[in-house]
Amino acid sequence: MESERDTVRKSLYEMVDMERAIEQVVSTCQDIFLASSKSGAGYSERVPLSECYGRVLADDLFSVVDVPGAPVSMKDGYAVRMSDFEAPVSPQHEAAGTRVFAVKMEMHATQTGEEQIPVLPDGCVAYVATGAVLPLGADAVVMVENTRAASDESVEILKAPYCRGQDIRPRGVDLAKGQLVLSKSELILEAEIGLLAACGVSHVSVIRPPVVGVLSTGDEVVDVSESRSAALSAGSTYDSNRPMLLAACAAAHAQVVDLGIVHDHAAELERTFMDACAKCDLIVTSGGVSMGRRDLLQRILASKGTVHFGRVRMKPGKPLTFATLLPNAFEPDAPPLPRTRVVLSLPGNPVSSFVCLHLVVIPAIRSLQGHASPLPPIVDAVLAQDVKLDPERPEYHRATLVWNAELGAFQARSTGVQQSSRLLSARSANAFLVLPALDETLKSGSKVRAMLIMQERLNG
Amino acid sequence: MESERDTVRKSLYEMVDMERAIEQVVSTCQDIFLASSKSGAGYSERVPLSECYGRVLADDLFSVVDVPGAPVSMKDGYAVRMSDFEAPVSPQHEAAGTRVFAVKMEMHATQTGEEQIPVLPDGCVAYVATGAVLPLGADAVVMVENTRAASDESVEILKAPYCRGQDIRPRGVDLAKGQLVLSKSELILEAEIGLLAACGVSHVSVIRPPVVGVLSTGDEVVDVSESRSAALSAGSTYDSNRPMLLAACAAAHAQVVDLGIVHDHAAELERTFMDACAKCDLIVTSGGVSMGRRDLLQRILASKGTVHFGRVRMKPGKPLTFATLLPNAFEPDAPPLPRTRVVLSLPGNPVSSFVCLHLVVIPAIRSLQGHASPLPPIVDAVLAQDVKLDPERPEYHRATLVWNAELGAFQARSTGVQQSSRLLSARSANAFLVLPALDETLKSGSKVRAMLIMQERLNG
Repeated sequence: MESERDTVRKSLYEMVDMERAIEQVVSTCQDIFLASSKSGAGYSERVPLSECYGRVLADDLFSVVDVPGAPVSMKDGYAVRMSDFEAPVSPQHEAAGTRVFAVKMEMHATQTGEEQIPVLPDGCVAYVATGAVLPLGADAVVMVENTRAASDESVEILKAPYCRGQDIRPRGVDLAKGQLVLSKSELILEAEIGLLAACGVSHVSVIRPPVVGVLSTGDEVVDVSESRSAALSAGSTYDSNRPMLLAACAAAHAQVVDLGIVHDHAAELERTFMDACAKCDLIVTSGGVSMGRRDLLQRILASKGTVHFGRVRMKPGKPLTFATLLPNAFEPDAPPLPRTRVVLSLPGNPVSSFVCLHLVVIPAIRSLQGHASPLPPIVDAVLAQDVKLDPERPEYHRATLVWNAELGAFQARSTGVQQSSRLLSARSANAFLVLPALDETLKSGSKVRAMLIMQERLNG
Repeated sequence: MESERDTVRKSLYEMVDMERAIEQVVSTCQDIFLASSKSGAGYSERVPLSECYGRVLADDLFSVVDVPGAPVSMKDGYAVRMSDFEAPVSPQHEAAGTRVFAVKMEMHATQTGEEQIPVLPDGCVAYVATGAVLPLGADAVVMVENTRAASDESVEILKAPYCRGQDIRPRGVDLAKGQLVLSKSELILEAEIGLLAACGVSHVSVIRPPVVGVLSTGDEVVDVSESRSAALSAGSTYDSNRPMLLAACAAAHAQVVDLGIVHDHAAELERTFMDACAKCDLIVTSGGVSMGRRDLLQRILASKGTVHFGRVRMKPGKPLTFATLLPNAFEPDAPPLPRTRVVLSLPGNPVSSFVCLHLVVIPAIRSLQGHASPLPPIVDAVLAQDVKLDPERPEYHRATLVWNAELGAFQARSTGVQQSSRLLSARSANAFLVLPALDETLKSGSKVRAMLIMQERLNG
């Protein structure tokens, strides 16, 4: 214990800038993803259409069908031959500006086979419903609003400048057989699911989601599931980071593994890391912010891999640590395994954890899943109140952005006291204001940069 | 068939404005939600913390614990009594600007019980790690950086203006027992999950998600699961709407029910509606855009409930229909059931369906789930190219918005040809440009209003 007090007064690590830190995490994860996409090992998986929402396409996708499969009508109306409009017309109809045709058939939208499509006799028309296949020979559709029923078997068509192809969807106009429909690396949301279905794709190859293990450290940390069985002792804290991180990683479409709470004990921590290395692409820890504890964790990371940074010039979240480990780091005699493991060690303070989650954990997950733009979007916003800056470190200030139609801009309201233990400052937030380190106060109305997070909340 | 051709040349329904239509759907759903929140029937359900992401809180939530549960140190350092700094100091230390204290104890962050907290003897200090409970009597923490180890049992503390309470998190400062932590109707995302866990909440009452049934209609429509067994006939279309709608409704946190494909047959359609009414809060249909088919559907809706509108002045999506049914409409002798059923009948064209999904279906789901702001946010955007307006109907033009830092504004790029059958125009879209009905072309650089959709895609 004595040694701990004496040796740890200074951090071992250089302070790095946050933008550099983010860049380093993202490019490392992108490299890991690229390597796996080249080797193919554990790169993609085939899932039914109903399970691919939010996933990333593993291969280019081409249509195997024409949509529509035959020329179809875009309107309820009459399929005609344009050449029939050149025939002479009776003086009576000439005067009325109409032309009478025999209605020889009726076509509805059904599963018409190629061989079932009839030929439209010369001088006749066919009633066609929206979506119905046109009879062969028809080259325009006159919508029902331009017609008048003349008798049970005939229709009067108003003279109008109809043109060839009018109100017809030609075969393959929406999607042509062989056409590139979606590209490798595209995000699949509902529009893309519709497109895949339209092409007859029922199963699709998507990038395998990264497996993300989440653990909390600390002797004082208690699992919330124990909240029913016992009163909380004065020195204990319910573990808020692990449930928060697990939920956010799952929402970012990672496959999450709950690694539990690990006490401040070197062997226990090492055992957990060994297990995690065997199955997780990314290991996210939180806690261990005091210098003695950080030593425990950083000693394992340094001895089993490379610590890329251990301190970041930012507020909150300074002790953020980023390391990579070989997957067989704990079993040196095992054959080398394909994927480098990524470790992100977040501070234990709930707000620091929350900020680091959005700045590096989610971008890491997105990078490991092949997203082209892994970082949260940054927009401009106008401050709704004065905000005091931190003179020493750039700050990621929790705020709620709402579009103000009068201003024609996002207006940003601080979520209040920004102390790093006060998780209430993350409640209802949908942005971090990216504030520079300056010894001054930004006035209400100033323009700031804002990073959008939890965008589901943009609705307010 | 003859009668169909003759009687359906005009729609039965007045054309309504889209903004009015959206308002009507949302306020009806909000009323249904309010009624159920009053009666309590099927209003909420209790779920574990791990399942409440994206859900809406059913009740106000108060903390049952103080966080922290006792005063704790915010730094690695020494807990002191401020009064000890008033005692005289040796000339040697006076000159060095320091003061020496005996280190009598060491406190770490652990599950310390109230009764285990020691008293700090007068004139002594205690080593405290970040997060450790302070010994009784200590009223400030001096961080380790302001100290120097004097011997194994003593520490030299630099003279500095320390103040009472320095670097101490008082009991309950982050969350106080009895404090309102989250309000009824708040959306639960990761920050709120962290807050709930911090308060020791392992299970939470959330609004029951609406049950949403989705069906497609049309004799020509083929389920994509059949794509492996048979070639598609010329007149057939794979059902793209149902997979798209099911995925989007599930992503909006509804509980979805796949009602399948229903053919153009009155009895079959009625039977499906009867089943759906028994279990679904919201029934979403698509297809049946031709006038004869619309009759089939609208006849059922009109006879079993109220059709609020059947045509909307918008592009695409004009035939959008909104109705409400009593849950026992199909079993008139059954006792009245509590919730009115909502029906949204979308046009069959994939793009019309996609637009109506975002304009009314998702807002309906959000309203039925008690969201305070059910509508998608609307922002300003600058056109990246010329866009031709529709002279007759306001248009919801699919576009991709990207924040342009140079412009300090969202820049909107059209997704290309906007024909309502061309679902490719929804690919990669993250907004609808809300364009007025005018016979002109908006020039590149013009400002337009844009409705944000699929916000997961704002990252690009």
